[in-house]
Amino acid sequence: MNDLYDVINRRRDTRREFTGQPIPPASLQRVLAAAHCAPSVGMSQPWDFVLVRSPQTLESFRSHVAGEREVFAASLDGERGETFDTIKVEGIVESGLGIVVGYDPSRGGPDVLGRHAIADTGLYSVVCAIQNLWLASTAEGLGVGWVSFYREEFLRDLVGFPAHVRPVAWLCVGPVSALPDVPDLERFGWRHRSPLAEVLHEERYAPRV
Amino acid sequence: MNDLYDVINRRRDTRREFTGQPIPPASLQRVLAAAHCAPSVGMSQPWDFVLVRSPQTLESFRSHVAGEREVFAASLDGERGETFDTIKVEGIVESGLGIVVGYDPSRGGPDVLGRHAIADTGLYSVVCAIQNLWLASTAEGLGVGWVSFYREEFLRDLVGFPAHVRPVAWLCVGPVSALPDVPDLERFGWRHRSPLAEVLHEERYAPRV
Repeated sequence: MNDLYDVINRRRDTRREFTGQPIPPASLQRVLAAAHCAPSVGMSQPWDFVLVRSPQTLESFRSHVAGEREVFAASLDGERGETFDTIKVEGIVESGLGIVVGYDPSRGGPDVLGRHAIADTGLYSVVCAIQNLWLASTAEGLGVGWVSFYREEFLRDLVGFPAHVRPVAWLCVGPVSALPDVPDLERFGWRHRSPLAEVLHEERYAPRV
Repeated sequence: MNDLYDVINRRRDTRREFTGQPIPPASLQRVLAAAHCAPSVGMSQPWDFVLVRSPQTLESFRSHVAGEREVFAASLDGERGETFDTIKVEGIVESGLGIVVGYDPSRGGPDVLGRHAIADTGLYSVVCAIQNLWLASTAEGLGVGWVSFYREEFLRDLVGFPAHVRPVAWLCVGPVSALPDVPDLERFGWRHRSPLAEVLHEERYAPRV
């Protein structure tokens, strides 16, 4: 059930299948502990997790995301627009729990080992934590939907992050009826997955022909 | 052996334990397939993986990283400098394989679903792939050492990435004698891990007292 490769293959970005039931507390604890166990540059552990369940906050965010959905829809031409119409981009209210993930670059002391040449390594650490959280959720029978139709300033204000903490993700997390075999964007005709060979190179990068 | 939580807990950032033996091809294939199975914004799959084994390229990168290690060391005061002296920051030559991971924002068509409001979501996808790769490597008995003491322009030139592809990581990957129980930065006195409670918030962010 919790075999790593099985979990990696079953993991889906979930929007339609949330049941709205609460997460068993022990499951949620394991999921958050897995996130906190991620690698981080200079052991800075620069993430924050805000658990949002307030119906008012969920509704505020849902409404903001609906507006951003329209912004994106307006940029598409006819056929792509029609395909996009069929795609659900969030399960904010249905899941009943949003986990807002933030990046705090002040974590880890004045000299973060491994960050002097590449400032974004701190941000990378936060995403490693998100992927751990996502896999653990999959193992627990929970769906995760990463919502990115939002403006960072809006989300910062919504959960009260100070100016130096950057919102990285809103994750809808909750029990699901099932995880689809085929990713939503593929089954609704938006994009298809490419073969591994297309992104593999030996010794040096070779452009695809 | 491959239980998800066990793998998440055993995963380490490895620098000292590489044996230099080659990776069984089937293991490497599973590791790369796990990376390619990561979530990506708008199903853009915007990653590239360059497998570097050439001794000349490994040595060029090792030498560059040694220079950047000195840049960082020069920024530290006496006590921190002495602690840092004991810490190994790479296993580039010893591992025998570098996997260079790139981010190609041109992947995924003209309109990447989920990226219009937050450009960095493409970069986040690449890091999800890295974390999948890291966990799969752990399950295969391989160590991974993420090296970030380098300048992106140097690495771009070294592996021939075009100007629009951003280097995100150099990963030293190879068989190891063991994975340490305690992370290197903790056992060599650089930093200690914090408890989960310090980064958890309910409904709204609350600063730590």
